[in-house]
Amino acid sequence: MRGNSFGKMLSITSFGESHGEAIGVVIDGVPPGMDYSLEDLQHELDRRAPGRLKGATARKEPDRAEILSGVFEGKTLGTPIAVIVKNTNQRSADYDKLKENYRPGHADKTTEAKYGIRDHRGGGRSSGRETVARVIGGYFSGLLLKDVTIRAWISKVGPFEYNDVPDLSGDFGSYSFPDTSKTDEIEKYLVGLKKDGESRGGQVRIAIDNCPIGLGEPSFDKLKADMAKALVSIGACFSFSFGLGEEMADHNGSFVSSNTDNFGGIEGGISNGNRIMMKITFKPTSTIGDKAKEGRHDPCIIPRAIPVVEGMVKLVLADHYLRQNAYKNL
Amino acid sequence: MRGNSFGKMLSITSFGESHGEAIGVVIDGVPPGMDYSLEDLQHELDRRAPGRLKGATARKEPDRAEILSGVFEGKTLGTPIAVIVKNTNQRSADYDKLKENYRPGHADKTTEAKYGIRDHRGGGRSSGRETVARVIGGYFSGLLLKDVTIRAWISKVGPFEYNDVPDLSGDFGSYSFPDTSKTDEIEKYLVGLKKDGESRGGQVRIAIDNCPIGLGEPSFDKLKADMAKALVSIGACFSFSFGLGEEMADHNGSFVSSNTDNFGGIEGGISNGNRIMMKITFKPTSTIGDKAKEGRHDPCIIPRAIPVVEGMVKLVLADHYLRQNAYKNL
Amino acid sequence: MRGNSFGKMLSITSFGESHGEAIGVVIDGVPPGMDYSLEDLQHELDRRAPGRLKGATARKEPDRAEILSGVFEGKTLGTPIAVIVKNTNQRSADYDKLKENYRPGHADKTTEAKYGIRDHRGGGRSSGRETVARVIGGYFSGLLLKDVTIRAWISKVGPFEYNDVPDLSGDFGSYSFPDTSKTDEIEKYLVGLKKDGESRGGQVRIAIDNCPIGLGEPSFDKLKADMAKALVSIGACFSFSFGLGEEMADHNGSFVSSNTDNFGGIEGGISNGNRIMMKITFKPTSTIGDKAKEGRHDPCIIPRAIPVVEGMVKLVLADHYLRQNAYKNL
Amino acid sequence: MRGNSFGKMLSITSFGESHGEAIGVVIDGVPPGMDYSLEDLQHELDRRAPGRLKGATARKEPDRAEILSGVFEGKTLGTPIAVIVKNTNQRSADYDKLKENYRPGHADKTTEAKYGIRDHRGGGRSSGRETVARVIGGYFSGLLLKDVTIRAWISKVGPFEYNDVPDLSGDFGSYSFPDTSKTDEIEKYLVGLKKDGESRGGQVRIAIDNCPIGLGEPSFDKLKADMAKALVSIGACFSFSFGLGEEMADHNGSFVSSNTDNFGGIEGGISNGNRIMMKITFKPTSTIGDKAKEGRHDPCIIPRAIPVVEGMVKLVLADHYLRQNAYKNL
Repeated sequence: MRGNSFGKMLSITSFGESHGEAIGVVIDGVPPGMDYSLEDLQHELDRRAPGRLKGATARKEPDRAEILSGVFEGKTLGTPIAVIVKNTNQRSADYDKLKENYRPGHADKTTEAKYGIRDHRGGGRSSGRETVARVIGGYFSGLLLKDVTIRAWISKVGPFEYNDVPDLSGDFGSYSFPDTSKTDEIEKYLVGLKKDGESRGGQVRIAIDNCPIGLGEPSFDKLKADMAKALVSIGACFSFSFGLGEEMADHNGSFVSSNTDNFGGIEGGISNGNRIMMKITFKPTSTIGDKAKEGRHDPCIIPRAIPVVEGMVKLVLADHYLRQNAYKNL
Repeated sequence: MRGNSFGKMLSITSFGESHGEAIGVVIDGVPPGMDYSLEDLQHELDRRAPGRLKGATARKEPDRAEILSGVFEGKTLGTPIAVIVKNTNQRSADYDKLKENYRPGHADKTTEAKYGIRDHRGGGRSSGRETVARVIGGYFSGLLLKDVTIRAWISKVGPFEYNDVPDLSGDFGSYSFPDTSKTDEIEKYLVGLKKDGESRGGQVRIAIDNCPIGLGEPSFDKLKADMAKALVSIGACFSFSFGLGEEMADHNGSFVSSNTDNFGGIEGGISNGNRIMMKITFKPTSTIGDKAKEGRHDPCIIPRAIPVVEGMVKLVLADHYLRQNAYKNL
Repeated sequence: MRGNSFGKMLSITSFGESHGEAIGVVIDGVPPGMDYSLEDLQHELDRRAPGRLKGATARKEPDRAEILSGVFEGKTLGTPIAVIVKNTNQRSADYDKLKENYRPGHADKTTEAKYGIRDHRGGGRSSGRETVARVIGGYFSGLLLKDVTIRAWISKVGPFEYNDVPDLSGDFGSYSFPDTSKTDEIEKYLVGLKKDGESRGGQVRIAIDNCPIGLGEPSFDKLKADMAKALVSIGACFSFSFGLGEEMADHNGSFVSSNTDNFGGIEGGISNGNRIMMKITFKPTSTIGDKAKEGRHDPCIIPRAIPVVEGMVKLVLADHYLRQNAYKNL
Repeated sequence: MRGNSFGKMLSITSFGESHGEAIGVVIDGVPPGMDYSLEDLQHELDRRAPGRLKGATARKEPDRAEILSGVFEGKTLGTPIAVIVKNTNQRSADYDKLKENYRPGHADKTTEAKYGIRDHRGGGRSSGRETVARVIGGYFSGLLLKDVTIRAWISKVGPFEYNDVPDLSGDFGSYSFPDTSKTDEIEKYLVGLKKDGESRGGQVRIAIDNCPIGLGEPSFDKLKADMAKALVSIGACFSFSFGLGEEMADHNGSFVSSNTDNFGGIEGGISNGNRIMMKITFKPTSTIGDKAKEGRHDPCIIPRAIPVVEGMVKLVLADHYLRQNAYKNL
């Protein structure tokens, strides 16, 4: 009821404040007998880890996943999988000044208004660290989606734009920008922002290939609606669209109907077997000015958000896949 | 699980195919002892009813609400409120050709792929008639939100754009376009589309004033995430954004932080007491060409979608209001 | 949240006060393409209908089922099935005296304490009429359980006891007492109670044959736990047990382990393929004295409760069947 | 969906196999700003800990609670509280023989049938260790119930019976038998069972004083129904009753109505302010014979089950308390 769980057949329950003991997640509904790999899981976490990129925060947190339950001899048991990541790098001193310093666009003030109490050492539940749970949940959801390809990439950051749909099996470089000839320039741009105490938003596009037909329910749990909730629930996300998106307002029906791509792989809220295409927007990170120059914050969240975005998409697909499978072979 | 319910503390369960006996809804969680009015409810339904506007479908369905339960002597009982609207105008002959005619962008094909069976007489659950349930649910949710102002309007349709935020107590005319000097032109434009067998998408903006502070939960059930799901779950909706929306990608943090309006009334996923501003996009309706010229379809859904949009927003707010109230005065 | 829904994959949402317009139910999660029959449904309702038995209430309510949605040409559509039964026999005059007359053991007083408002014309949501929804939900759940046999019977009422397990395909007579040589005596006994302004409790046993192995979840949603909730949620039910039940307290482990029947078909909360055996107790109906002599009340609820009990059992089994099926053939 | 969560407004999600890394629980919905004490929590866990009593298992597991989230400076934050207890005493060698040894009445066989895979080192999710999560959940739920008294005690074990309702503030001794003059005899009895490779069931009664009026919902989520589910979901529980329980079958309505105590504090499914009285039955533990003589198993589970029972009752009450509070002071 307090909204720390997501999903129906396959659900995750997330816990942990940014400066508490640990961030963690319970994934319930993963089928029994599936091969998993701690290394693959860790690899996903490393993609969102701080300290990995010059153009991101300099904090180094190992973010080591510990699996507490739900697995045995390399396989899932069908029981709830609990995974924790200890918080090892909480420098409270850095944050003590924030006790009465409410960052605009951040949850500090609203959290206090809501609860009357707040762990002022950091963002608490609203910290970006909460997304660790989403990446872990996404990894285990992905075990169910072996034949589905899910890729997210940066389509816009600062002056850099990528408007095509890339080869989904390609390497998008360390900043997840499909034109990897720009990777160095992007890094330079982000490092420059950090030096200036600035931050920047951006856009991410997501493509799904080989999504089974028939996922999504016709009324409230349309596939598009659950994707919207999943993605907009990510901290800094300010928009969601699929297919033609906002451009839909600018066309006549005859134009739109002439090309199924315009519907982004979802008709009547249900996957139609075509490639699914979605787009989301992130705001610039809240920490700017001198605080930002200290280096412990990201000037732009989206390079690290990519595995989070992919994780949420996997959760939605795996959940709907099981929901639909319940009605097969009766 | 099949996604016909929405909301947690206050929930609606929707039922009914477009060409079955009735469309209906069960609203559970409305507090006891609230004054309601059948006329006010009917007025909301009339706002979305077909046949009311020249620029919309010519079908005339009375859409008469019958309350079956949950009320007594002018007040709510706190028990589930069931309301049905009988389907009186199903002209199956009109639709029989559609048995194997799958309209692009419509649910016909995906529904058949999903269920293996379909009421081919119409859109079934994916028909626009399903939104009757949302309007009714919105009316009863609104009983809880006496001090909150919720208004939606068309900000873009064809060549007509309205980019300001209007006086929320104003009259927006029969096409919900705040610049009512354009109402006649808009009607002419829509009638023209119909004649041409064309359809058109558009954009709707939503403003909420006096939203209590502290609504929304910090993780998955952020207010923005539940709004995204609620609104994108409406049939033809292709995008959701709030605050600066997609424009967030084009600015630095210093610019964004300088004006709280950019956050659209929601920080950290929780309402901050400012005006909440959201925007959604609708695609052109699927029926075009000769079929559209017959007149039983809307060339543009958004004039009739306005009460549906407001209804979904009310549902989300009332649900979160009760969820937050559970922790008050303990 | 207000507890008018039951079930997860297959759920029912019940609505209606005893003296409102109608009692109804939305059944969500029934698979598409299943043959149903309005006559079979009506037959189930007739089993619980008042006025059918001399030993029950003399009120005659036709309890005619109207299906509003979810079916087409004799088959289910996979969409929510809404069914209503109009309340035709509300004699408010009979009940007006009850405005401030709180029957012990009845919900009158607690309902008013809880809601601050009450439809004093009858039991409202707490009336036995609410069980109409359970019978209808049970009928549609049963479509999924073609190979499973589910029978409930009276094992104790007044001086009559039946302690064996009868042939489940047998005819148990109009009072659902497997020794049908006693049917007339039971009727005489119940008619006698009515004349005396008395009422009586009793016990019901339930047997399930051919229940698939593996239904139930190992932690909170054990099959036994969901059966307990389903059955104890019936108005007058005061106990639930399975297998040896309360007798388990009187034996050593060696005795209990020597015969699998003692576990009642459920081990570790999961069906083991054996016959499932359960027992529940009903209290005497609340209306006694002169009021009872008027004849509009049942001296003993259990003859009419049998189809309600079977309905709830079917709901639990069908729900768990779909939940388990979601993990098959992945 | 896989049933590892319980509760609506206040919910617990349990995880952990008996022989995995840890047992744990996430408690979501505890209000912010409540004082808690790690010592009090540990005290509750110690009440169910093995190795404490001569008449129970000789395994010694410290069962040390580690709180990972949701608290700060001695107070709850209103965010999910995650607590783990590491499994320190897994002697796999002891259990390896059990790989193909299915104990009757235990979940070994049904678990394998259900999942096709099993952690054969122990009971997995069906082990008694899973109840650690329930005790922890109960502790935090209890923070909401300061004025409510909840006590469970053994009313029957072997030849010992206690049929009165004791002073709820009294000390019931180390075996939770209110007549503490029998404590030593009970211990002797249980030690004797262990020597004989025997086990024993028993009965537990539960009393609740000062329960607020109005808890429970009139249809499926009746207070009695949620109590039934909560208690019957405990591993070895075979029966649930309240008020007069099974005896209800043996009386006329005039007798039953003459004393409100017979209704056990719940009318129409809703608490009426009277003392709530419930009774449950536990089966003898499954491990008997030579295996039992080794000493690592309990001859009777109920002395250690008492804090589990109280925990589940607290969860149900706290959940319903918040659900009802959502409608107060609107």
